[in-house]
Amino acid sequence: MKKDLGSVLALYPTPLVVVGAYVGDKPDWTLVGHVGIIGHDRILVSLAKPHYINGGIRQNKVLSVNVVDEALLAKADYVGCVSGNSTDKSEVFETSVGKAGAPMISSAPLTMECRVVDVYETPGFESFICAIEHTYADEGILNEQGKLDYHKFKPVLFEMPTYEYLKTGDAIAKCMSFGKKEGK
Amino acid sequence: MKKDLGSVLALYPTPLVVVGAYVGDKPDWTLVGHVGIIGHDRILVSLAKPHYINGGIRQNKVLSVNVVDEALLAKADYVGCVSGNSTDKSEVFETSVGKAGAPMISSAPLTMECRVVDVYETPGFESFICAIEHTYADEGILNEQGKLDYHKFKPVLFEMPTYEYLKTGDAIAKCMSFGKKEGK
Repeated sequence: MKKDLGSVLALYPTPLVVVGAYVGDKPDWTLVGHVGIIGHDRILVSLAKPHYINGGIRQNKVLSVNVVDEALLAKADYVGCVSGNSTDKSEVFETSVGKAGAPMISSAPLTMECRVVDVYETPGFESFICAIEHTYADEGILNEQGKLDYHKFKPVLFEMPTYEYLKTGDAIAKCMSFGKKEGK
Repeated sequence: MKKDLGSVLALYPTPLVVVGAYVGDKPDWTLVGHVGIIGHDRILVSLAKPHYINGGIRQNKVLSVNVVDEALLAKADYVGCVSGNSTDKSEVFETSVGKAGAPMISSAPLTMECRVVDVYETPGFESFICAIEHTYADEGILNEQGKLDYHKFKPVLFEMPTYEYLKTGDAIAKCMSFGKKEGK
């Protein structure tokens, strides 16, 4: 029996990321679970307007999107717990600087360095539309063809309804491998 | 050692969904892995412009987002394999009609029925920005508080780099449960 829950966000789980940007001369970091993919070359990160980091993103128009794995989760959760408005988070992570000038988490196995090409505004939120300029990956999470290997790299996932972090599980199948035969 | 892969989409895995909309008087269905969340009340589904379903979405401005679990995967993969431009997919799923008029997959445990409030265009793609009007869920995937329970419901996940479907894994922790103590 189906129940109408009303207007409930249910597009989960999403990959959990830490967004990094300079605010003034210091890096700031915040945890984001509301993200998305646009076409084949842009991503969005959606942030409530009061976030301290938003000013730095608007000013510099570059940011990093650091995908969180379990090794990063404690610090990632921490930067989601405290606000840059009241706490200096610049030293939470060892920082490296990307080719486009964004601060990045040195220990993150996978980071996209992005240029902000647009801001999509909705009440209370700024969703930063980002063109990916560089994707940096530890060689240990690549397969033999040099592609990201989700058998080796397991992003932490986010869901808001009960506010939990989840694991990325095992592979089920190659896409479009069986639908033609089995689907109809 | 980190490698710069260039501009590579790496914001995976994402929840896999089947989008449904009427095209003329028949429902059409297509598989989408490029989705996102905007603020706390909107989602986006990003579709290449040639998709047959896009015309129906533009005309009727309502669609359903059916979250794929393993029981739905074979048919979901099938509607991703064949184009509505050449194949009538209206009878692939048993269809029910939502309160806002969108066709929905009767057997999907979780469906959002959405009104299209904007179209964000990028070269070759239309990303439909959707306000969620109703979220329909099987009672069996809700917890005792009536919230979606990801211990019970396991969406299939999508990743494009090696084009595989993945499982949603077990819970790790409650969000913001340990970062304050452990993170710093």
